[in-house]
Amino acid sequence: MLKEILEEVRKKEPLIHNIMNRVSINDCANLLLACGASPVMADEEREAEEITASSAGLVLNMGMLSQRVIPAMMKAGIKANEMGIPVILDPVGAGISAFRRETVEKLKEVMHFSVIRGNASEIRALSGKREEGKGVDAAPCDQVTEENIEQMVKIARECSEQTGAVVILTGAMDVVTDQKESFLVLNGHPMMKKVTGTGCQLSALTAAYVAVCPEKPLESALAAVCAMGVAGEKAYARMKPEDGSGSYRIYLMDGIYQLNGEELEQYARYKKWKS
Amino acid sequence: MLKEILEEVRKKEPLIHNIMNRVSINDCANLLLACGASPVMADEEREAEEITASSAGLVLNMGMLSQRVIPAMMKAGIKANEMGIPVILDPVGAGISAFRRETVEKLKEVMHFSVIRGNASEIRALSGKREEGKGVDAAPCDQVTEENIEQMVKIARECSEQTGAVVILTGAMDVVTDQKESFLVLNGHPMMKKVTGTGCQLSALTAAYVAVCPEKPLESALAAVCAMGVAGEKAYARMKPEDGSGSYRIYLMDGIYQLNGEELEQYARYKKWKS
Amino acid sequence: MLKEILEEVRKKEPLIHNIMNRVSINDCANLLLACGASPVMADEEREAEEITASSAGLVLNMGMLSQRVIPAMMKAGIKANEMGIPVILDPVGAGISAFRRETVEKLKEVMHFSVIRGNASEIRALSGKREEGKGVDAAPCDQVTEENIEQMVKIARECSEQTGAVVILTGAMDVVTDQKESFLVLNGHPMMKKVTGTGCQLSALTAAYVAVCPEKPLESALAAVCAMGVAGEKAYARMKPEDGSGSYRIYLMDGIYQLNGEELEQYARYKKWKS
Repeated sequence: MLKEILEEVRKKEPLIHNIMNRVSINDCANLLLACGASPVMADEEREAEEITASSAGLVLNMGMLSQRVIPAMMKAGIKANEMGIPVILDPVGAGISAFRRETVEKLKEVMHFSVIRGNASEIRALSGKREEGKGVDAAPCDQVTEENIEQMVKIARECSEQTGAVVILTGAMDVVTDQKESFLVLNGHPMMKKVTGTGCQLSALTAAYVAVCPEKPLESALAAVCAMGVAGEKAYARMKPEDGSGSYRIYLMDGIYQLNGEELEQYARYKKWKS
Repeated sequence: MLKEILEEVRKKEPLIHNIMNRVSINDCANLLLACGASPVMADEEREAEEITASSAGLVLNMGMLSQRVIPAMMKAGIKANEMGIPVILDPVGAGISAFRRETVEKLKEVMHFSVIRGNASEIRALSGKREEGKGVDAAPCDQVTEENIEQMVKIARECSEQTGAVVILTGAMDVVTDQKESFLVLNGHPMMKKVTGTGCQLSALTAAYVAVCPEKPLESALAAVCAMGVAGEKAYARMKPEDGSGSYRIYLMDGIYQLNGEELEQYARYKKWKS
Repeated sequence: MLKEILEEVRKKEPLIHNIMNRVSINDCANLLLACGASPVMADEEREAEEITASSAGLVLNMGMLSQRVIPAMMKAGIKANEMGIPVILDPVGAGISAFRRETVEKLKEVMHFSVIRGNASEIRALSGKREEGKGVDAAPCDQVTEENIEQMVKIARECSEQTGAVVILTGAMDVVTDQKESFLVLNGHPMMKKVTGTGCQLSALTAAYVAVCPEKPLESALAAVCAMGVAGEKAYARMKPEDGSGSYRIYLMDGIYQLNGEELEQYARYKKWKS
C-alpha cells in the first residue's frame, strides 16, 4: 500500500499549491520536486483560487503568518473544498499568539481539512486548548514518548473528531489518526529537529501523497510520515564525522529523492494503536 | 567571446538588483556571488529607484508575484531604462492567472527589456497567447525537442519581435534569439529540473553577464545559457550513487563558482539556427 | 569565558525572535538550531510583542526592509527593552537608501540595542555619516586591514558611544567594542564573503550568545564573532578541489553545529586594542 502511493506520486506528478512561510519555502518546493510532485508557491489573494483550481492539492502553512496572506488562504481553501481538492493544514505555532489562534478558528470555520499536521502544542491549540508552545518548535512537554503516548493519541483523536480531518501529531514517535483508527510511526531520527522546517516538509509531502490518493487520506498520510522518517534515518546513516546539520539537511533531501517503493515498504515501522 | 564575458563579470563584479520571489531568492543571491557579481535583493517601492540607480543590472522575476511588489517593479524598470541599465524579465508562471497576465502587460507597456527568459509556456503567455502552463514548471507540451525545435524558435523570435528583447526560451534545448539571429544551446542536464529555481538562477546569471557587456545582449545571454548548462553537466558528473537533488543543487552552485573562461569555451555546445 | 558562553547556549536553548529579510532567513534559522538555540521567525505587527515577550533575544535585521515590517520591528524592540530582553540590530544596507537611513533613525529613537553588527559602511551610516555602500556587501573602501584598523576601531567606538550598544564591525578583521574596551578578531576566511548572509548569520549567533549572558554583552559578542570565524576556517579546511561556494555554505553550517567550547578556546584569535 505504501509502495503504491509513493509510486503514484512519481507517475502522476501532482501539482501542489503551497501558501506558506518564508523560512522553509525553498526546502518545501525542492522536497516536492524530489518526491516526484510539482510545486507552485503563490500567496497573492488575486490569483489564489485560480491556482488552487489547477492543482491536485493545497497546503496552508501558518509559519510566519501575516495578515496579507489570510485572504489568499481563505479563498484557496474554500475553492479547494468546492472542487474536492485535498487541503493540508500545517498550524505552525498555532498557540503562540492571539493572532494565530484567531486565524486557526477562522480557517476551521470556513473550510474542511483532509489532513492536519503539527506537533503536540499545535494540535492542542487547534482543539482550542490554551497551552503555549515554545516558539514554533515542540516544547519539552510535547515530546511524544512511551510514557505519554496514550495521551498523545487522545489529543490527536480529539482534534480529528472536532475537525473531521486525519491528524498527524509528530514527535519522537508520530501519531496518525482519524476518528476510527490510529497508527504509531517509529521511523525518523532526532537530527531532523536540528533542521528548520522538516515538519513543513512533511506537510508538503503529505499533500503530494494525499493528492494522488484522496479517497484514502489516512493511508496516504501514514505513507508520507513513514517516507519522511525513513529518509531521515537514511540521511543520518550517511553522516561523516565532520558533518553536521548543514549536510544532514542535504542528505534528507537526497533521501526523499532516492526513496523507492520497495525501500519504503521494507523500512517503514508503524503499528496500529489498540484503544 | 564567451570566455571574455565570464571573465569580465569576475573583474567588474557588477551589482545586480533583484526584485523577485521568495522561493529561489537565496539561491539567486548565492549564484550571483558565485559567478563573481554582487547581489542586492530589495523590493520596497520607496527605495527601488535608488537601488536600481546604483546597480549595473536589474532582474524582475514574477515568481510569487504579489500586488505589493508591482509598484517597485515599475519604478525600478523605468529608472533602469532611463539610465541605460539592462533589465532582465523572468515571467515566472506568466500564463497561470489573470493577475500575472495583466501584470506582464503592464510591465511591457512601460519599460523595455534587454532580455526575457522563460519556458515555452511563459514565452507564449508573454506574446499574449492564452495557453496555460502547469504551475510554474514547464508543461509536457513545453518540452523543447528535435521535433518541435523549429516551432520553439518561431515562438521565441515572435516574442523578440514584439518586445525588442533578446529572448531565452529554455527547455531540454535552449533557444537564444533576437530579431535577426537565433542560437540553439545543447548544454544542460535533466537533473536541473529537479531543483527549484534553476530558471530563476539563469535569469540572475544572465543579468550579470549582460551587465558587463550591455552592447551585446545576444552574445551575453548566449554565454550565460551555456555557462549554466555546463555547470549543470559538471554537477551531474560529480553525483555519487547516494546523491539526489539536494546534493545536485549544491554541486550546481559549486559549478558556477568553479567555472572559468577556458572551460566555458571548451564545453559550450551551441549552434546557429538557419532559418 | 568563550567556552562557557557557547556551552550555556547549548544548555539553555534560548528562543531567539528574528524579524528579518527573506534572503538569509532559512540559513539564520538553521544556524540558530545548529548552535543550540531555537529560532522563531515572525514579522506580523499583530503578534510581534507577544512573540518577543516569550523570547530570550530579538534580532532586527534590515535586509530587504519593507514598510510592512517596520511597525513589527518597533513594537518588538520596545517590548524587548521593557522586559530586559537583548536586542541585536543588523543594519543591512543602512546607507543605501533614504528609506533605510530614515528607518535606522526611527529605530534608534525608540529603542536601545545591546549589540549592533554591520560592515564599515553600515556602521558609518548608523552614525549618520552619508557614505554609501555598494549594495548590501561591504564596499572596497570598507575592507578592514592593518592599515586602516585604527580608523575602523574609531568608527565602531563612535557608534558605540552614540548608541550605547556593543558594536561589531566586520571585515577581513573584525572589531568588537563598547565605549571602554575594544577587541580585534583575526578569525574567519575570505570564502565567507562568497556566501550570502554570513553577516546575518553572525548577528543571529550573537543574539543567541548574548541571550544567555545578557549582563556581559561585550564578551558574548566577542565569543560569537570568534565562533563564526573559527567555523569559517574549519569549513574552508574541508573544501575539496571541486567544491565551491555551495559546499562551503554547508560546511559553515556544519562547523557551527560541530563547534565545542574547547575548540573555540583553542582556535579563537583575538587581541585587545590599546588606545
